[in-house]
Amino acid sequence: AQQIEEPFPATQQVVLLNDQLVATQHQVQALQEQYYELAGTNKVLVSEVLGLTRMVKAQHQIANELINH
Amino acid sequence: AQQIEEPFPATQQVVLLNDQLVATQHQVQALQEQYYELAGTNKVLVSEVLGLTRMVKAQHQIANELINH
Amino acid sequence: AQQIEEPFPATQQVVLLNDQLVATQHQVQALQEQYYELAGTNKVLVSEVLGLTRMVKAQHQIANELINH
Repeated sequence: AQQIEEPFPATQQVVLLNDQLVATQHQVQALQEQYYELAGTNKVLVSEVLGLTRMVKAQHQIANELINH
Repeated sequence: AQQIEEPFPATQQVVLLNDQLVATQHQVQALQEQYYELAGTNKVLVSEVLGLTRMVKAQHQIANELINH
Repeated sequence: AQQIEEPFPATQQVVLLNDQLVATQHQVQALQEQYYELAGTNKVLVSEVLGLTRMVKAQHQIANELINH
């Protein structure tokens, strides 16, 4: 009976492990949110760079026409 | 003898902890893969932006020459 | 008394779980550092793209003036 009443060492380690796991899960969750934010910025950047590429190519054509005429 | 046959409370908690840890590891693995994908997009963006910078600087020089001549 | 001296199966599982949790924490830590690196590259890219956008718009204006005059 005493063995059940007194906390088994494993129980304390399990409590500690659980705390550490919860902390790790919070860290993973925070990292997931940071990832989504970065993925959003990246998406905007891809769109901006595509727009710039179009503009620069159009200007390249205009410059060529100005040089040739 | 009963104490060995009957599951010790810690054992059930360990099974639960193990399940949660496996779930956390899957989440970390998924995040790792998302990271690699984003790092790949980022690498392409760096290359695109470098190419654009070269083109824009070349056009700047052409524009200057057109203005000065 | 034997039950205390002999390792309880849960104890071994707790040791295993602890090892796996430590490994998972290291993976999360590495991912966090990779994230920070990628966020840094992203910040530089945002700045570069903003600079390019300004240059391209200025050149667009110059090209327009060259065409109209």
